[in-house]
Amino acid sequence: MERYTHPSIDAVETCAVFHALSDPFRLDIVRTLARRGPLNCAALSCDRPRSTMSHHFRVLREAGLVRTATQGTEHINTLRQDELERRFPGLVALILGTTVPPELTETAS
Amino acid sequence: MERYTHPSIDAVETCAVFHALSDPFRLDIVRTLARRGPLNCAALSCDRPRSTMSHHFRVLREAGLVRTATQGTEHINTLRQDELERRFPGLVALILGTTVPPELTETAS
Repeated sequence: MERYTHPSIDAVETCAVFHALSDPFRLDIVRTLARRGPLNCAALSCDRPRSTMSHHFRVLREAGLVRTATQGTEHINTLRQDELERRFPGLVALILGTTVPPELTETAS
Repeated sequence: MERYTHPSIDAVETCAVFHALSDPFRLDIVRTLARRGPLNCAALSCDRPRSTMSHHFRVLREAGLVRTATQGTEHINTLRQDELERRFPGLVALILGTTVPPELTETAS
């Protein structure tokens, strides 16, 4: 079973977070996790090659954005939202706010 | 005299902004402009080669972060702060808040 390592959120460099979010696919993963909660890799892969997915999730983990846990044969990814909010206040709101998802605009007052 | 082009802030991709901020030196330039106001390239270069500076400022301009204007022989760089705040609410605060400058912690209540 694969084991994943995750940095302390306080050890994460700001530039590493911005680098992780500079790729459209990784940014989309983070947005999806923020809106839908924990998901396995299959739900997020969009049929991309396994090696590509491994790379993107490693970058996201190393930047402190995502925590991956194994549950049986599944790899469940969770946004480290509360920790991120403490370390980088406003970051998650910024990520979600820059392109407002359709379901939010439909219910906006 | 060199002329610079700047994208409409609404045409800027979120990923491009994050990419521009993923480099420690570029992030430092943005923080410095946010705290000190418009500055020429010499004040920001820290003795880096001209070609390196040209590259970094081009990335910052293309990401909509910085506007460069020529005044005589000087190239004055300004953070597009109001436009950024409208397009990416919270971004500048996030950039400044991730490492609080000493002068801000001294005056914080």
